Amino acid sequence: MNIPFCKPYYSGNEIKYIKKAMRSGKLSGNGKITQKCQEIFENKYQFKKCFLTTSCTDALEMSALLLEIRPGDEVIMPSYTFVSTANAFTLRGAKIVFIDSRADYPGIDESKIEESITPKTRAIVPVHYAGIACDMDKIMAIAKKHSLYVVEDAAQAIDSYYIGKSGFKRPLGGIGHLAAFSFHDTKNIIAGEGGLLVINDDRYIKSAEIIWEKGTNRAAFWRGEVDKYHWVDIGSSFLPSEITAAFLLAQLEILEEIQERRKKIWSCYDENLQNLERKNIIRLPIIPKYATNNAHMYYIICRDVSERGALIAYLKRNGILSVFHYDGLHQSEYYKKIQGCRELPFCEKYSDCLLRLPMFYELKLRDVERVSKQISRFYDSNRKK
Amino acid sequence: MNIPFCKPYYSGNEIKYIKKAMRSGKLSGNGKITQKCQEIFENKYQFKKCFLTTSCTDALEMSALLLEIRPGDEVIMPSYTFVSTANAFTLRGAKIVFIDSRADYPGIDESKIEESITPKTRAIVPVHYAGIACDMDKIMAIAKKHSLYVVEDAAQAIDSYYIGKSGFKRPLGGIGHLAAFSFHDTKNIIAGEGGLLVINDDRYIKSAEIIWEKGTNRAAFWRGEVDKYHWVDIGSSFLPSEITAAFLLAQLEILEEIQERRKKIWSCYDENLQNLERKNIIRLPIIPKYATNNAHMYYIICRDVSERGALIAYLKRNGILSVFHYDGLHQSEYYKKIQGCRELPFCEKYSDCLLRLPMFYELKLRDVERVSKQISRFYDSNRKK
Repeated sequence: MNIPFCKPYYSGNEIKYIKKAMRSGKLSGNGKITQKCQEIFENKYQFKKCFLTTSCTDALEMSALLLEIRPGDEVIMPSYTFVSTANAFTLRGAKIVFIDSRADYPGIDESKIEESITPKTRAIVPVHYAGIACDMDKIMAIAKKHSLYVVEDAAQAIDSYYIGKSGFKRPLGGIGHLAAFSFHDTKNIIAGEGGLLVINDDRYIKSAEIIWEKGTNRAAFWRGEVDKYHWVDIGSSFLPSEITAAFLLAQLEILEEIQERRKKIWSCYDENLQNLERKNIIRLPIIPKYATNNAHMYYIICRDVSERGALIAYLKRNGILSVFHYDGLHQSEYYKKIQGCRELPFCEKYSDCLLRLPMFYELKLRDVERVSKQISRFYDSNRKK
Repeated sequence: MNIPFCKPYYSGNEIKYIKKAMRSGKLSGNGKITQKCQEIFENKYQFKKCFLTTSCTDALEMSALLLEIRPGDEVIMPSYTFVSTANAFTLRGAKIVFIDSRADYPGIDESKIEESITPKTRAIVPVHYAGIACDMDKIMAIAKKHSLYVVEDAAQAIDSYYIGKSGFKRPLGGIGHLAAFSFHDTKNIIAGEGGLLVINDDRYIKSAEIIWEKGTNRAAFWRGEVDKYHWVDIGSSFLPSEITAAFLLAQLEILEEIQERRKKIWSCYDENLQNLERKNIIRLPIIPKYATNNAHMYYIICRDVSERGALIAYLKRNGILSVFHYDGLHQSEYYKKIQGCRELPFCEKYSDCLLRLPMFYELKLRDVERVSKQISRFYDSNRKK
């Protein structure tokens, strides 16, 4: 009877491919299955070079290493994001400069980026929240003007696009110098834990290969370019096993099918909840003209934190799990301690009021209707009180 | 007909446990299977607290974060080790001080540690090469005298022991303040890629939980100790998926069986090659009085690099894959660039002369005899020339 918040969906080939990896006798990273997954991403989205990683966090950390982020450098990003967006650069000693969210949408307010740039700024990290594009033409123009790097945090943005002024559609993750995707359990396609670093700027491919392989030139060694491999730079063990890659490969095969189904679920929520938005009771997600929808998430925006708390409790009593999202990172204990306090009112609004509804492949449309009806009932009974 | 260098061995339950994880609907990190693996290690070896990680590299990086290693700090370790031992601390800005290997054994020369300690030294990282213990009583006494931390790099040392002067046997990884194990493909038990951080000093358990969970207090949140989880410290995504943990769990169940078999193989090599050692043609591994043997590796030490190269080629022509090991990290391009050149003659000797022979569960004793015979034949024909 209960509706969970999310539930992994399997193609049915996960075990088959893992068994194949086991038979191959090579389960450690950078094997044939890893390479196959990377090629699929490169071909499907025209990404220049892809590296599977053990997590999106690790892909972001690789980015910080690639850009040689150092103590004193400043990195601009939204506060309304997952902790890893900031941690990856904080680990390298950067000062994080948090920008508010847009009024109409939780993504970074592009209009507030330029005023935060200083001579120490090195990079902008836009986060495509809920898989919905930031205004990348604007962000790339700012970056170009100030000679900054752009790392797309595309954790939630697989198979989502940005539509430029020319009408040309580009896949998210293919626009910034670097980009990071997640295959965590909660994402559209999954590997339990897993991520992907995308390199769109040729200059970083060779260094990425080294950093990925623990700071060694092992990749060149495998290609027969050197006799022995050596320690040539800092790096880490960013490679996932072939078991993880095998799991992901099976998921990649059903990406289209998953996307189609999730979009149906998303639209069903959107239709069923229109009525509440028209009455100004809740707000629904917007998809800007320059963005496509990958149906990663369906969220509503309540009026305040106590109303949201009551709604979560009401849904829970009715067997439905709904989940709030990020606390603005600028309000975290850790950031306050190291960088002091700021006010970012829209971010704080989303921290208090945004509520994510159940969203997964196997969610039935009649369950979407049930969730929507329960939300309506909650507001009906609230009004009567 | 060919004998590979290593080959993964499976318990037969790997797929069963992965399927179980898939059915549970939770594949991301820190699930029930991860916790079960951690408990098995804690109970079997009396480790205070264990955290599965995505690699041994990651466990070492967690150690560096836990000890708050900072630029300017110095960390002492052998040069004859894998690049990750050094990288984990270099990433935090530490200066690595490399110590030579012992004359009789590739591990760190304990007698040369104290002369390398300065007021900036923060930690000693002994590496239990080939799973054979360093002299931990000596190392712990030096650390205590100078108030230093000890991080055991126990990558190869699962199920191996140190025997103190009192005769008391302690498992490697359970002696230093922290320790790191590897479950990479080539290890006694495997998870494709995977590792384990062991915490033996209570003071680090709480911080480790936070660093492991991306710098958040999510673990406390799951336990119901806080309402929401926040960014409370730097951290990363060190947790492997439940898929990885499920694979490892199946391996843990056959650890005893694997160890027994590997020891038989090891002894078979040792008996078959005694003759060459007696003639002073090669050197065989020694197991010091204070160490047990976990049969992670069987190696021989040739007289020089060209002889070793010729032997590798000879064995290869006869269908046998043998592999050299580390280039001393002090000789690497990267270290020379940042720290300048040193001479560590014993390390350089092992870099040039150590050769690892095929070692895996399914290796037949008659194949061990075949490898040994081929080595004898190589030296016979060399003598005749």
